[in-house]
Amino acid sequence: MTEENFVAETTFPIRYAETDAMGIVHHASYIVYFEEGRSAYTRERGRSYAAMEEDGYYLAVTGVQARYKQSMRYGQNVTVRCWIDEMKSRTLIFAYELLDAQSGEICVTGTTKHVCLTKEGQIAKFPESWR
Amino acid sequence: MTEENFVAETTFPIRYAETDAMGIVHHASYIVYFEEGRSAYTRERGRSYAAMEEDGYYLAVTGVQARYKQSMRYGQNVTVRCWIDEMKSRTLIFAYELLDAQSGEICVTGTTKHVCLTKEGQIAKFPESWR
Amino acid sequence: MTEENFVAETTFPIRYAETDAMGIVHHASYIVYFEEGRSAYTRERGRSYAAMEEDGYYLAVTGVQARYKQSMRYGQNVTVRCWIDEMKSRTLIFAYELLDAQSGEICVTGTTKHVCLTKEGQIAKFPESWR
Amino acid sequence: MTEENFVAETTFPIRYAETDAMGIVHHASYIVYFEEGRSAYTRERGRSYAAMEEDGYYLAVTGVQARYKQSMRYGQNVTVRCWIDEMKSRTLIFAYELLDAQSGEICVTGTTKHVCLTKEGQIAKFPESWR
Repeated sequence: MTEENFVAETTFPIRYAETDAMGIVHHASYIVYFEEGRSAYTRERGRSYAAMEEDGYYLAVTGVQARYKQSMRYGQNVTVRCWIDEMKSRTLIFAYELLDAQSGEICVTGTTKHVCLTKEGQIAKFPESWR
Repeated sequence: MTEENFVAETTFPIRYAETDAMGIVHHASYIVYFEEGRSAYTRERGRSYAAMEEDGYYLAVTGVQARYKQSMRYGQNVTVRCWIDEMKSRTLIFAYELLDAQSGEICVTGTTKHVCLTKEGQIAKFPESWR
Repeated sequence: MTEENFVAETTFPIRYAETDAMGIVHHASYIVYFEEGRSAYTRERGRSYAAMEEDGYYLAVTGVQARYKQSMRYGQNVTVRCWIDEMKSRTLIFAYELLDAQSGEICVTGTTKHVCLTKEGQIAKFPESWR
Repeated sequence: MTEENFVAETTFPIRYAETDAMGIVHHASYIVYFEEGRSAYTRERGRSYAAMEEDGYYLAVTGVQARYKQSMRYGQNVTVRCWIDEMKSRTLIFAYELLDAQSGEICVTGTTKHVCLTKEGQIAKFPESWR
C-alpha cells in the first residue's frame, strides 16, 4: 500500500453520554469521532499528534462537513476510517467514514479541512516530518 | 419583517469545558452552538422544539457544514444568528453565523440540513404548524 | 450583603446536546453547569476568570461531588446558584444548587474543591486579588 | 475470583476534545470515563447495559463524587477500573480508578450511586438478572 491511499481504522464502543433524547448519537459527537480517526491516523503513521504539538505545530481545523445517513445508538461499536483526501503545501483535507462495526454499514461520511499553525498562530507550510 | 428573512439571535458566554488544549473553542462545540441557534429560532417563532417533539415529530439532522474563520476563546460571549435558508416539503436548511458579541466579528459560518421524522423514524412532510 | 454569603445566579436553557437516551440531562452535563456557576460568580464579583488566568494563576479542580434529586429535560431553563462554602489560604470550596427556573425546584446540589496553581503547575496561595 | 470482587478494566486513548484550555483533561470528562467503566463492567459480566434498557429498566445516577489527584493529557491512554462497591436491593454503588495506562499511576478516583428505575420513572428493586 502506498502512502497515498493509507487508511487508518479504529473501533470503539459508542458512549451513553454521546446519545441524546432522540435515543441516538448526537450529531456533534460524530465530529469528535472524526477527530479520533485523525488521532488514529497519526498514531498508525508512526508519529502521534501530541508529538507534533511538542514540535510547536498545530493542525487547526478550518472547515468540516458531514452527511448523516444512518443514526447510531448506544450498544453499537463504531469503526472510524480516516485517510488523507488532499495534501497541499499549506492545506490538508482528511476524509472519514463511520461504520457500524458489526454490520459494516456506513452511517456517516465527512471531511475536515486543516491548516498548519505555529505556536504564535501564524499559518505555516507543513513541516517535512508531517508528510 | 416577513417570515422568509426572520433571523433569530441568542448570545451566551463561552464555557471553559468547550475549549481544548489549543486554548480555543473545540471545533465540535460550534456545532452545538448552531443547535442553540435553532432552539432560539423555534422559541422566538412562538413554538419550542420541545413542544414539536410532543406532537410526535423530530427534526433529524442529515448534514452539517461549518467554516471556521476565527477562533474563539473562553472569556468571550458568542452571538448565534440562525435563519431558514431553504424550506421544501420534506427538507429544511438552517444557516448560521457565530459572532464575537463584543466586536461583531464573524468567527464561524455554517448550515445544517434536516428532514422531519415521525416517532417511528419515517420521513414525513413537515406538519403545517411548523411552517 | 457581606462577601461571605454572596450567591451568584445565572439562568440558561438546557441544550439538546446535553440530554441522553434516557431523555434527560446526562449526569456529567450538570458538572459543566456547576462550572458555569463559577464563571458567573467571578464575573459578578467584578473579575472574570479569564483575567485571572492572564495573571498566571489557574483554579484547578481537586474534587467534585453531586447529588441528583430530580432529572431535568430539554425545554427547561436551569438556574445555577453558586457561592463559596469555604475559603482557606490554599483551598477553596464552591457549593451549587441547580433549579428548574420556572418552578424553583432544586434538582441537583453539589460542591467542587479547588487549589490555586501557577502556570508551572505548582500549588500556591490564592493571590490577594482573588479574595 | 468471586463475583464480589470482580473488577472490569478498559483502556482507551484520551481525546483531544476532552481537554480544555489548561492543556489537561476537563474534570467533567472523567465522569464520562467512569461511565465507560460501568459499560465495560456490564459487557464483561456478559450482559450489555443496552440489553438491560431493552428489558425496561434504567440505571439512574443519584450521586457522583470524584477526587482528582493527577491531571491527564492528550497523548496518554487512560485505564478505567470499575467494580461494585456496595449492592443493596434498591441502591448500587460503583467505584472507579482512572490510571495512566503506561505508568500505572492512579490519577482520579471516584464513586457513583444508582437506583433502578422502570420506564415509567418509578424506583424498583434491581431485577434478578442484574445481580
